[in-house]
Amino acid sequence: MLQGSKAGAREAMPVAYRIEGVEGLPEIRPGDDLAQLVADAVELEDGDILVVTSKVVSKAEGRIVQADDREAAITAETVRVVATREYEGGITRIVENRQGIIGAAAGVDASNAPHGTVLLLPVDPDASARALATGIRALTGRHVGVILSDTLGRPWREGQTDIAIGAAGVHVFDDLRGSADASGKPLAVTMPCVADQLAGAAELVKGKSSGVPVAVVRGLGRYVGDLDLPGARSILRPAERDLFRVGADEAYTEGYRDGFDESQAEGVADSAG
Amino acid sequence: MLQGSKAGAREAMPVAYRIEGVEGLPEIRPGDDLAQLVADAVELEDGDILVVTSKVVSKAEGRIVQADDREAAITAETVRVVATREYEGGITRIVENRQGIIGAAAGVDASNAPHGTVLLLPVDPDASARALATGIRALTGRHVGVILSDTLGRPWREGQTDIAIGAAGVHVFDDLRGSADASGKPLAVTMPCVADQLAGAAELVKGKSSGVPVAVVRGLGRYVGDLDLPGARSILRPAERDLFRVGADEAYTEGYRDGFDESQAEGVADSAG
Repeated sequence: MLQGSKAGAREAMPVAYRIEGVEGLPEIRPGDDLAQLVADAVELEDGDILVVTSKVVSKAEGRIVQADDREAAITAETVRVVATREYEGGITRIVENRQGIIGAAAGVDASNAPHGTVLLLPVDPDASARALATGIRALTGRHVGVILSDTLGRPWREGQTDIAIGAAGVHVFDDLRGSADASGKPLAVTMPCVADQLAGAAELVKGKSSGVPVAVVRGLGRYVGDLDLPGARSILRPAERDLFRVGADEAYTEGYRDGFDESQAEGVADSAG
Repeated sequence: MLQGSKAGAREAMPVAYRIEGVEGLPEIRPGDDLAQLVADAVELEDGDILVVTSKVVSKAEGRIVQADDREAAITAETVRVVATREYEGGITRIVENRQGIIGAAAGVDASNAPHGTVLLLPVDPDASARALATGIRALTGRHVGVILSDTLGRPWREGQTDIAIGAAGVHVFDDLRGSADASGKPLAVTMPCVADQLAGAAELVKGKSSGVPVAVVRGLGRYVGDLDLPGARSILRPAERDLFRVGADEAYTEGYRDGFDESQAEGVADSAG
């Protein structure tokens, strides 16, 4: 059930929705008022959800550094190295970044950034989403939600999907715990991540090279709510509860060292005895 | 670029699409002709993509076993244990199943199955998708694609998303390798997983308890193609190329044992010398 939603919301599950790319936005520059630009570019309705590529938020917020600092920028954005692998000509670094998100290159991206520069993620994507939602609601009088998306790879599966790195005014989960399936049995799978699914759905119209950084989702107003709902940070699982908190090679190496040392210590104890 | 798509497909990136739940399907039973039932339930158009909850395919294919065999069924469907963790009252088993998919409980599911039974995944989800797409194309004369979806958790992020476990007549990736961003620079992120994003997008109308197991995606015909396109199995990354091929605890334990043994062997060699 959605927190704070009307009774019977589940019964009112929508049968259809629509996603539309917002065309006509200018190239975003540091200092731009993104809420105003979006409000000018599209006629919004109550219940709309805006999915905004985080890169344009980074640009508006001036999160740009010189490109020759890319590797240093990745290191600076990293709070924890999760896994690394060398390949011909480079190294893949899967890290947890300052935003708590695990991915390659800590969200530091050279594509779609001005020549000679790289973009960093917004400092606090949920706060950026909240500012954007607040601004757009004030400008338009419409009850809308905002999701900031980024493109990430994932374990076990090739390719990338867009996921939610920031959210405001949107239920990021559809919490079904305690509810039942169509035949009345408790549901085993209980918490679809609405925000990630919306981010991925929006990618299909925004694309990577189309210059359409914002999409409007229309018809899923049941997921729109108060601005103080938990943001996308609530999607992040703490490392200590994660079965894949570090890469297999990293964990093996740590285990090997501990096992070796333990055996050596035993040997020393035996010799001493 | 999409394999086999017309030149200029990228420029024709759609600005909007629509997802609609297919209502009025009966409860699916073993032996049912799912292609016929879907063709009867919805007026299809060229370029439509059907996202079908894999459970109804399992039901039509009779992939049902008695519920008191659930743990045995999970074991039987498992080809490789990836990670396990005990919790109060049970154990979480993340495994690679016969279909090559990594997830909890090997795709064995008790929800939405007849009382006293559990559902197994289709034996070959891509083949099931192909049979369904072939049947629906023949019955309707429409050039449609089919994705079979399932609901899975993922590392690092709470909640679940629907992903593609089978596909036919659909480009599962939008392969952008070699193409450029809006400013002409090569794209770093190059292969969005269209099929997974479509599966997640469709979950938002199908839901878990709504009894709507099929959705139609309309307006993304650029992703529809030949029936012999690579299926969802092409999304699976081989374990040897995956940085998270086993859980951190499992890798640590293996490393510890190897380190301990290596140290002991050195000790024996030293004593012998």
